[in-house]
Amino acid sequence: MAVPPSIYPRRLLPLFLGLFQGALLLFFALFVTYDEPSTQVEDTNLANQVYSTFPFFQDIQVMLVVGLGLLLTFLPRYGFSALTHNFLLLNFSMQWALVLQGLLHHFHHGHIHLDLHKLLISEFAAVTVLISVGAILGRASPCQLLVMATCEIPIYLASEWVIVTCLGVLDVGGTITIHIFSCYFGLGVSKALFRAAQQPLNPKETPTPSSDLMSLVGTLILWVFWPSFVAVLCRPGDAQHRAILNTLLAMSASAITTVVTSSLLERDGKLSPGHLQNGSLAGGVAIGVVADMAMPPVAALALGSLSAVVCVLGFRFLSPVLGRKLTLHDQCGIHNLHGLPGILGGAASVVAVLVASKDTSGSHPSQLSPVGGNASEVVEGQWGGRGAGGQALCQAAGLAVAAGASLLAGLLTGAALRLPCLARPPERLCFDDSLYFKMQDQAESPGPDSSAEEGALALKE
Amino acid sequence: MAVPPSIYPRRLLPLFLGLFQGALLLFFALFVTYDEPSTQVEDTNLANQVYSTFPFFQDIQVMLVVGLGLLLTFLPRYGFSALTHNFLLLNFSMQWALVLQGLLHHFHHGHIHLDLHKLLISEFAAVTVLISVGAILGRASPCQLLVMATCEIPIYLASEWVIVTCLGVLDVGGTITIHIFSCYFGLGVSKALFRAAQQPLNPKETPTPSSDLMSLVGTLILWVFWPSFVAVLCRPGDAQHRAILNTLLAMSASAITTVVTSSLLERDGKLSPGHLQNGSLAGGVAIGVVADMAMPPVAALALGSLSAVVCVLGFRFLSPVLGRKLTLHDQCGIHNLHGLPGILGGAASVVAVLVASKDTSGSHPSQLSPVGGNASEVVEGQWGGRGAGGQALCQAAGLAVAAGASLLAGLLTGAALRLPCLARPPERLCFDDSLYFKMQDQAESPGPDSSAEEGALALKE
Amino acid sequence: MAVPPSIYPRRLLPLFLGLFQGALLLFFALFVTYDEPSTQVEDTNLANQVYSTFPFFQDIQVMLVVGLGLLLTFLPRYGFSALTHNFLLLNFSMQWALVLQGLLHHFHHGHIHLDLHKLLISEFAAVTVLISVGAILGRASPCQLLVMATCEIPIYLASEWVIVTCLGVLDVGGTITIHIFSCYFGLGVSKALFRAAQQPLNPKETPTPSSDLMSLVGTLILWVFWPSFVAVLCRPGDAQHRAILNTLLAMSASAITTVVTSSLLERDGKLSPGHLQNGSLAGGVAIGVVADMAMPPVAALALGSLSAVVCVLGFRFLSPVLGRKLTLHDQCGIHNLHGLPGILGGAASVVAVLVASKDTSGSHPSQLSPVGGNASEVVEGQWGGRGAGGQALCQAAGLAVAAGASLLAGLLTGAALRLPCLARPPERLCFDDSLYFKMQDQAESPGPDSSAEEGALALKE
Repeated sequence: MAVPPSIYPRRLLPLFLGLFQGALLLFFALFVTYDEPSTQVEDTNLANQVYSTFPFFQDIQVMLVVGLGLLLTFLPRYGFSALTHNFLLLNFSMQWALVLQGLLHHFHHGHIHLDLHKLLISEFAAVTVLISVGAILGRASPCQLLVMATCEIPIYLASEWVIVTCLGVLDVGGTITIHIFSCYFGLGVSKALFRAAQQPLNPKETPTPSSDLMSLVGTLILWVFWPSFVAVLCRPGDAQHRAILNTLLAMSASAITTVVTSSLLERDGKLSPGHLQNGSLAGGVAIGVVADMAMPPVAALALGSLSAVVCVLGFRFLSPVLGRKLTLHDQCGIHNLHGLPGILGGAASVVAVLVASKDTSGSHPSQLSPVGGNASEVVEGQWGGRGAGGQALCQAAGLAVAAGASLLAGLLTGAALRLPCLARPPERLCFDDSLYFKMQDQAESPGPDSSAEEGALALKE
Repeated sequence: MAVPPSIYPRRLLPLFLGLFQGALLLFFALFVTYDEPSTQVEDTNLANQVYSTFPFFQDIQVMLVVGLGLLLTFLPRYGFSALTHNFLLLNFSMQWALVLQGLLHHFHHGHIHLDLHKLLISEFAAVTVLISVGAILGRASPCQLLVMATCEIPIYLASEWVIVTCLGVLDVGGTITIHIFSCYFGLGVSKALFRAAQQPLNPKETPTPSSDLMSLVGTLILWVFWPSFVAVLCRPGDAQHRAILNTLLAMSASAITTVVTSSLLERDGKLSPGHLQNGSLAGGVAIGVVADMAMPPVAALALGSLSAVVCVLGFRFLSPVLGRKLTLHDQCGIHNLHGLPGILGGAASVVAVLVASKDTSGSHPSQLSPVGGNASEVVEGQWGGRGAGGQALCQAAGLAVAAGASLLAGLLTGAALRLPCLARPPERLCFDDSLYFKMQDQAESPGPDSSAEEGALALKE
Repeated sequence: MAVPPSIYPRRLLPLFLGLFQGALLLFFALFVTYDEPSTQVEDTNLANQVYSTFPFFQDIQVMLVVGLGLLLTFLPRYGFSALTHNFLLLNFSMQWALVLQGLLHHFHHGHIHLDLHKLLISEFAAVTVLISVGAILGRASPCQLLVMATCEIPIYLASEWVIVTCLGVLDVGGTITIHIFSCYFGLGVSKALFRAAQQPLNPKETPTPSSDLMSLVGTLILWVFWPSFVAVLCRPGDAQHRAILNTLLAMSASAITTVVTSSLLERDGKLSPGHLQNGSLAGGVAIGVVADMAMPPVAALALGSLSAVVCVLGFRFLSPVLGRKLTLHDQCGIHNLHGLPGILGGAASVVAVLVASKDTSGSHPSQLSPVGGNASEVVEGQWGGRGAGGQALCQAAGLAVAAGASLLAGLLTGAALRLPCLARPPERLCFDDSLYFKMQDQAESPGPDSSAEEGALALKE
């Protein structure tokens, strides 16, 4: 019974997802169990772990599902798709990361013991996909996004292993491992997918006041909960407290500096909604890598301000240049929100490591070591005995690895996304919910022609 | 001073609510106090209880007030009413449950000692009303909804007492006691209220893209915080940790399976917003009853997937049949979101109990007993000494009691709601905020005629 | 290089904010450090402090950034500005309060030790600005709002010092120190800024159904998290538990009583969205000052009900009178939400103190003292040994100081805001996002004329 080709792309999505879900069930049935505490003390420890981790975990869930989802609804006729695809990709990537992490790291005694911390780590992996998608939002089919997620998660896990475990890079908030990585991966995908084709400005790309408002609400939700994202993996106590405060300071400075910068860039002093929606968050991206290090509060403020400046300048000057010169398409401006502030944060971590070691020459040795430690590593003594210079070098190397490897991997992935069976939507149907959802015709619809046209195209497809 | 009949229904709402609030004040004045810790140890225990319960409590408040409220705003011209009525009913039902619970259970020494846990239990009782309302949303007056809440809360408390205390049913997340109960209660009310009348499709029932978007945001908020709802009453430690993980897994599987199922059902592969808004939550409904039981993670995934499938199939095939054959009106599809997945969960609990007892024949005895225990009961030994078969029977009996009793009680309540003084709105004024609120005319209003017509009808009323 | 006057106002905002941010950096660089725990015990204490405070802190952030922001979006064409200005003012005021508090209170050993508690206190200071702004929302330029914040924060800190430290007023939830203060400050500013000019009704002031819906969502978010705001500074244990419960009860009673009152006031029984948006929160304003005192639960319910009544009556009767007789402009009705319920709460605290002392004549002495204690004060024995009558007098004096001083300071501040360089927008450009943001023309725009007109005015400006 041959499936007619015009139907095939529509069936690929449920087929792919259904097979994945079936394989996941099989994998879980064979290998995954819960750890059972055998003593009362272990049970109490588990209770304390839930109380200390779960509120952070919920905050992060709100960020990813509601905050990030709403941020992406700035495309006025694509809001439902943006929310849904974000939600779908989060779940898919999280499950996929759970499987891969189980296979890679946690295979002890034939069984994988699932706990809240492992789910959290998988959620972090999924974040990379959600960020990368921003580069091609609205112009890619759900199948393309899922294939991209399938490729990105293992590459992320490998890259994180190299950066954190091999190089010993300190990056508690994921600035390098998550933000830099996912930004350049996404840009690579975008470049390979769209190649040299200049993407024309689709009228549906222009935000309306109400879509801009929803998107700003998403920004504010992300802004509020960002400290939880940065601090969740910190060592409880001083390191976590410091990470929370540094993030709060950086984000507060970002908010104000975004207004200053955006206002100065325009002749009439009007603010750009896009600058506000992104610049306010830039400080959170940059602070992640140094949030728990021994540095004064002023450094957090300065870093937050600076990253807002580079983010807004990136939107104003760099994005158009990249678009024109490199025909690089970056729908949500992820390079401005995740790339530039991430590089700034990486550079700051080099400085922080060098300064921290100087500061401590006359001081007591406990300040020598970085205050915190990513939960997935144990810092012993002074950066594993490699000295400040060595650690600074490692931070820089980590940055380079994250950016380089992800760009390359993204280019390869993007090339794969060009497969015709993945059904990239034709330009005139981009940015439109009605391609993927049975929606009522929009009030602001230009007329009955568009749906007729879409029907015709869907038949041809 | 006779009140003219045309005004009376408009005055019934404040009269009813005002009297209730007055009676509540009297009741609280006479009987309710705070418990005062007399020792330092008790005070510290109270502090720890606040830290361990309050974040869960807040999560649940967000779910009910914001999440569920937004989910109901899919009716484009009825959003304000849906949010407000949901909010009003939550408060009314919670207070009413507080009074009844005080009278029934907690009458010691002439005083009722109020604490956060009692408020939480009352909140759970209120949830049943919020769910049941979904069956008649938009076609019932606020007075009818309040009378319905007045009837439902005592019936729920009685049913919960029979199911949990008498039958010893294990149901930590309220699948049977809350979801099944409220679903069939709501359907009963709908059947008795609308009888055999086929409800015509009102053009105001059709969601718009922006109302669908808001509703999806509500779904996502519910999705994020659902683990708190299921796990709040679990024993801290392993049971709670397991309940959180099981709920997360089930909901994640639901999200993906909903996309698969919805996409497969349509010839053109487009997803239905309604399927997404409901199916993504089905796993949370089903997992509640088994969330803290000794079962492998794969069971949670499978249950989540299956419940999403039955939920979507219910929307696609069962609802139209019920509507045509039984003239059963179910506005929000509560039978698909709460009924079918609830039954699935109940059946899963029977299996889980039986399998758990088998598994443990060769294993250490701590695994024999269910891992958790609802706070309102104390499980001693192996299900109160009644053996796996007995417990499985109890679970099934609980399911039957919840469905049967609530259907019957709902039918009676629905008959009472037909009282003319409760002012059921005429069909042409259904689904319209302007019947209950002083709103500006909607932009998408068909014209000035409708409000003139409404005025005429309001006079006649 | 002279800046042409027409451009100047547009440049004042970034100039002012930029200089402020620079000064803040300098101040932090010179004086602010983190406290470093030197022992393991101190580190564990810090971890516990984070776990007990941070969830409350996040709740409050959600309230201020998302909840309050959305509440202000009831102006349909001013939603983006309302959200952004609220966000900007929160950050600016918080940083400014951090600086001033550092200078005033925490200057030990040449360094200020930053911690989460100090950030929280600064956030509370910032709340006053966010409330006061409600009086002039939409008719003031961002520069005016920033100057107002610059004046209000130091006055608030002085007033709080007088009220709490000197007078020993008990006010754990900020009813007097925050709500009363900011209300009369805002009204003073409004009076002095607009003087005797009757503000004409701008058509853009009228909410649309969708802006009313967003605003109600904001109300609901505030409603859900309000207990965290009231209880965060309470002593852990009984006092905090009691504060949470009292706030929950008061807000629940407010919600229901608002519906009753609003419905009774209209001939046709329809509810006013504005009443719901504000009245539901009135109980939270009033309960703050007595939340942790020794009083029975019924008092919280009664206070919640009463404050909803005065709030709704204020909107219906008092606001129009104030507008006509005193030409007092109060855009958001802050006098009804913060002023009247605040006074009610203050009066209730007088009664609570007197009754508490009577109650305890035959009872054990631990009940004599107020149950809680604001973190910024230590209550020793019976209200610092001043007796119930003295404490009651202090509460009344605190109320008078808060209202009187803030009104006076507000009048002076408002006069300063009349400076022409602060660029108050002309009436016809009020309530419009497009004055401050590069927005697409709104769908509901009356036509192309308005933007042409604005251009002309902007040139003249």
